[in-house]
Amino acid sequence: MTSNRIPVTILGATGAVGQKLVVLLAGHPWFAVRRLCASDRNAGRPYQEAVHWIEPTPLPSEFGALVLDSADADVAGTIAFSALEADAAETIEPRFAAAGYWVVTNARPFRLAADVPLIIPEINADDVRLVDRQRAARGWRGAIVANPNCSAIILASALVPLERAFGIEGLVVTTMQAVSGAGYPGVPSLDALGNVIPHIPGEEDKIERETCKILGRAFPVSAHAHRVPVVDGHTLAVSVRLTGNPDPADVTAAFHAFEPPAAVAALPSAPERFLHVRAEPDRPQPRMDAAAGNGMTVSIGRVRACPVLDIRFVAVGHNTVRGAAGAAILNAELLVARDLVSRPT
Amino acid sequence: MTSNRIPVTILGATGAVGQKLVVLLAGHPWFAVRRLCASDRNAGRPYQEAVHWIEPTPLPSEFGALVLDSADADVAGTIAFSALEADAAETIEPRFAAAGYWVVTNARPFRLAADVPLIIPEINADDVRLVDRQRAARGWRGAIVANPNCSAIILASALVPLERAFGIEGLVVTTMQAVSGAGYPGVPSLDALGNVIPHIPGEEDKIERETCKILGRAFPVSAHAHRVPVVDGHTLAVSVRLTGNPDPADVTAAFHAFEPPAAVAALPSAPERFLHVRAEPDRPQPRMDAAAGNGMTVSIGRVRACPVLDIRFVAVGHNTVRGAAGAAILNAELLVARDLVSRPT
Amino acid sequence: MTSNRIPVTILGATGAVGQKLVVLLAGHPWFAVRRLCASDRNAGRPYQEAVHWIEPTPLPSEFGALVLDSADADVAGTIAFSALEADAAETIEPRFAAAGYWVVTNARPFRLAADVPLIIPEINADDVRLVDRQRAARGWRGAIVANPNCSAIILASALVPLERAFGIEGLVVTTMQAVSGAGYPGVPSLDALGNVIPHIPGEEDKIERETCKILGRAFPVSAHAHRVPVVDGHTLAVSVRLTGNPDPADVTAAFHAFEPPAAVAALPSAPERFLHVRAEPDRPQPRMDAAAGNGMTVSIGRVRACPVLDIRFVAVGHNTVRGAAGAAILNAELLVARDLVSRPT
Amino acid sequence: MTSNRIPVTILGATGAVGQKLVVLLAGHPWFAVRRLCASDRNAGRPYQEAVHWIEPTPLPSEFGALVLDSADADVAGTIAFSALEADAAETIEPRFAAAGYWVVTNARPFRLAADVPLIIPEINADDVRLVDRQRAARGWRGAIVANPNCSAIILASALVPLERAFGIEGLVVTTMQAVSGAGYPGVPSLDALGNVIPHIPGEEDKIERETCKILGRAFPVSAHAHRVPVVDGHTLAVSVRLTGNPDPADVTAAFHAFEPPAAVAALPSAPERFLHVRAEPDRPQPRMDAAAGNGMTVSIGRVRACPVLDIRFVAVGHNTVRGAAGAAILNAELLVARDLVSRPT
Repeated sequence: MTSNRIPVTILGATGAVGQKLVVLLAGHPWFAVRRLCASDRNAGRPYQEAVHWIEPTPLPSEFGALVLDSADADVAGTIAFSALEADAAETIEPRFAAAGYWVVTNARPFRLAADVPLIIPEINADDVRLVDRQRAARGWRGAIVANPNCSAIILASALVPLERAFGIEGLVVTTMQAVSGAGYPGVPSLDALGNVIPHIPGEEDKIERETCKILGRAFPVSAHAHRVPVVDGHTLAVSVRLTGNPDPADVTAAFHAFEPPAAVAALPSAPERFLHVRAEPDRPQPRMDAAAGNGMTVSIGRVRACPVLDIRFVAVGHNTVRGAAGAAILNAELLVARDLVSRPT
Repeated sequence: MTSNRIPVTILGATGAVGQKLVVLLAGHPWFAVRRLCASDRNAGRPYQEAVHWIEPTPLPSEFGALVLDSADADVAGTIAFSALEADAAETIEPRFAAAGYWVVTNARPFRLAADVPLIIPEINADDVRLVDRQRAARGWRGAIVANPNCSAIILASALVPLERAFGIEGLVVTTMQAVSGAGYPGVPSLDALGNVIPHIPGEEDKIERETCKILGRAFPVSAHAHRVPVVDGHTLAVSVRLTGNPDPADVTAAFHAFEPPAAVAALPSAPERFLHVRAEPDRPQPRMDAAAGNGMTVSIGRVRACPVLDIRFVAVGHNTVRGAAGAAILNAELLVARDLVSRPT
Repeated sequence: MTSNRIPVTILGATGAVGQKLVVLLAGHPWFAVRRLCASDRNAGRPYQEAVHWIEPTPLPSEFGALVLDSADADVAGTIAFSALEADAAETIEPRFAAAGYWVVTNARPFRLAADVPLIIPEINADDVRLVDRQRAARGWRGAIVANPNCSAIILASALVPLERAFGIEGLVVTTMQAVSGAGYPGVPSLDALGNVIPHIPGEEDKIERETCKILGRAFPVSAHAHRVPVVDGHTLAVSVRLTGNPDPADVTAAFHAFEPPAAVAALPSAPERFLHVRAEPDRPQPRMDAAAGNGMTVSIGRVRACPVLDIRFVAVGHNTVRGAAGAAILNAELLVARDLVSRPT
Repeated sequence: MTSNRIPVTILGATGAVGQKLVVLLAGHPWFAVRRLCASDRNAGRPYQEAVHWIEPTPLPSEFGALVLDSADADVAGTIAFSALEADAAETIEPRFAAAGYWVVTNARPFRLAADVPLIIPEINADDVRLVDRQRAARGWRGAIVANPNCSAIILASALVPLERAFGIEGLVVTTMQAVSGAGYPGVPSLDALGNVIPHIPGEEDKIERETCKILGRAFPVSAHAHRVPVVDGHTLAVSVRLTGNPDPADVTAAFHAFEPPAAVAALPSAPERFLHVRAEPDRPQPRMDAAAGNGMTVSIGRVRACPVLDIRFVAVGHNTVRGAAGAAILNAELLVARDLVSRPT
């Protein structure tokens, strides 16, 4: 099984997103984790000793014994998944890209750069072509390909049928975000328990700008970000103004009609349903729906008219799978499917 | 202390709001609870036996031994606080009003009737004059005076300075509501724990219509209602369009400048600050701010520009105090202050 | 796949345990759900309309359309899984047993009857022989086979190696139980959120008596039962006195050495590991460990000396899988493996 | 009011316990906070800028503007409340005691020293006499007086009537502890939400040893410590062996009969009821009972026979008030009442 898999590196392997990458890549049909990189402080230690494992899924034994490496770009490699913090990503990712790696990153720093593809394969797979411009401009042998912020991914996924069918003129989105999105140790329990925190530093700006970049067009987005006492799964309440003022039945039909490109739907991590439109009056809910499609499906419900803009609805997605580690893996699968990364023979 | 207090009745005394009325009226300077009414099933039992007490404050001993009465309007009285469920309120409240009671109600059925005052004393105290029309039209000796839905109270309180200073043209509000708003047993813990429920039956309609009635003018309101795992305190994320497109500094100044009428601010249950505008980037929060002003202050924060409408902000209020029992008591105090209810001499 | 599966009935299919049975039996290699019974109120309605589905796993489509039947024992059948409430179980289960069904029950009423096997297959599979006595005494063509209370299952599973290796002389157990154990609607969120409820009606008695029956010998058990704000997974803190006063290393070795009978370990629902002894200082935890072994593994940790009795440890198990629906299914599998129930040919 | 109050210093004023001391000492009749000390990093900054305020009660304005001082023992003073972390306490507290301060500490390092009083005034007020020996042995002009660990305080408070009436021969206690006991940021929300953590470093040893020191006699204590998703209020499930094997009615009578010394009951922070024995089957609960007696009452319930030891019961107390800051303040009040600290004239 491993013989023809592509060896991959994980940068920032001990963090929350790094751990999720390890879990999701265990047994991946195309990728084989060969190298786990961590801060210099942890380099040289077996992964299982250095990591404070927070996944309910046990640490796969084949990775526990791997000795952590420092994030040295001189070691040859093909794909480097980056789960680095922003500061580290800003300096380390360019080194790996320069050295020839496909840096498939969940980190923030390069997402809005004009020459960096910010990809949700079901939406804008063709934006990977930006890497040609990126390489030319930056003189890199490799490239950086980013996935958006967790909330922006869920929002853009829910919006793409509306943008395609009608055109978006503006929207107000209120997020109720799970604590796993803040990593570990992340949100102190004294702040989270029985509480709502109406502020996540930088989040609203990310949602507003990244959503437009993914959908390929600027329109006004107003985001209100909140942390709520939920472990996994972001909930988004959206009011949107659409060209032509469609009614809820039109919009529901557009949600149902949306199909990602067949080549994307065939990727190993793509869910059976990209979007699941629910008819129940009280769904989606994070506890019930975040894990839909192995965490890769975005669930939508309560599509109804909005007295101020045009349409209101609710969307729920898994913030660390579709919103982070799973997003990065799907992006890497896209690179392979497009023959940008070649498979071992 | 009791000699010159006004004897009051509580309808629906065993429910969650009824219990909060009992707690808040214990030791009230103007009102003395003399009669607790419950369903026929519980009539004849001592209150302390019939009630499943859910308040952290112990049941005041002077009320525990009171024998529950059925909701018979033939017993003479002055003020009846109604914490009835909607179905019961619809039939029982008119009987008490017809019999001469001032029915100060937290229940829904009569809130939107054109001749029923829907009062937040700091906002529209003069609407109590509607009772003249109500009595004439209905032939009642007493009257019904209602307080709004818990979320509508918090929203209207936060909006009134903006309506007065600029004029509201429309707004989108997302609520994150505490489970205590659903009463007891209310929301099952399997639904609430670690979850967001994006639906509260009837709530969005109440918020949209009651807010306009309180503020005295119709404008489009779009409400998204959610239940979150918080015990007490509703959080509202608001985007609002204002006449003249004021900037955040103007709006913050308007919040600070708003003063309720002096006669209202002097009522026993009125808080020192009707609105508290917070400067911290991550406030208000329900765990920290719901109890401000003994639960009667509405806290506001994160006033900032909205890219879609004009202004965004967050408001937090205590849903069972300012949003229910405390609201009713303040309304009753208003009736006394206006000499509509006379004090014993 | 279905041709040679045994048709089974679920009694109490709309409740929480009934739903878990439906989820766990979907795709079962030996059993095919053919009949879902519910109260007369729901009989005649499609399952998907009558059930308030609380499982995060979607309702399997092959069951959603099944029309609910009333619990009529005259319809022929082989195995009836009972997820009935105690009252209903007391009258309905004997009717099904009399009519020839193997009633595999999670309900309480018959667990302590001397002629009813109370089975955890890894511990006391041979107790199924009690059914001969049961049938003779009661004149039934079928029989009732019960699984223990959720906490008793986890406790007895953790204790069996100690009983076999040393002998138990007494124990004190404190449970911290998940809300899913109370079914739906179950525990009100106002009681559960941010709270500990130190009382679960009847639970302590069940734990104390059922544990002894499973292990086949009477010894003093003192149970302290609590509800905590956890969705799934009971945590038990145990202090136990053992014959011979073994030290923690001896006890840990006994935990590791325990092997269920090979025939039981080979059952389809038996986990790879019956017990998982964890070495981390802060495990097991319900959020991390309840789902181990697809919810059928009991996790043990913090084995250490007890200054009052002999040994202390912590055990965590999944209360609705190993502690209820999964327990019943494993019992039914045992009946098949022992040829008490014959497979279609 | 302030003229004849005793000026006090708070060491470790920015931490969670330091903040609670500030809240509880605001308006104290005997003590006036004059100096707030913090780490050198924060010295020189106004308290309101340096502190991350986590109390729902607003920071009292008279303290917000106080400039933080470093913990320099050369500044003269009378009482220093210590909310220091253990490491800091170990070096700083002796310096203040040597310099003449009464160091009233919540920190761990000196609690078990033979010459340091470990005081719960209702139980062992006379142990303050140990300070004579302490001063003689250590050559200090001042002294250190400690309060126990939060769980040990609640446990010892519940046990003292049983020790006095019957004599304790041993006990098993399982704690379900609130997250506020871990300070801030303390327990990560990913660990706390919907979970039980069966380990609190060092806690079991503290409970076992401090309880015996407070009660003045060694007996075996077996503690099982857990963190649960509760904000405030520790719940303890206790099984205890008592001399003479009293029955639950005897024990309940002993709980009711216990009276703290009158001089202690008259201290400003002493609650009306030291112990509150509840008769409800499901109380005490932390959400309902932790705040009893302004957080200084320990609530007891479910007194019943234990099949293994003699008696079982549940106790709940407020971990940061009775279990920390309030405990220290009560100890300081005791020093004043005993004229060990003199009041300004």
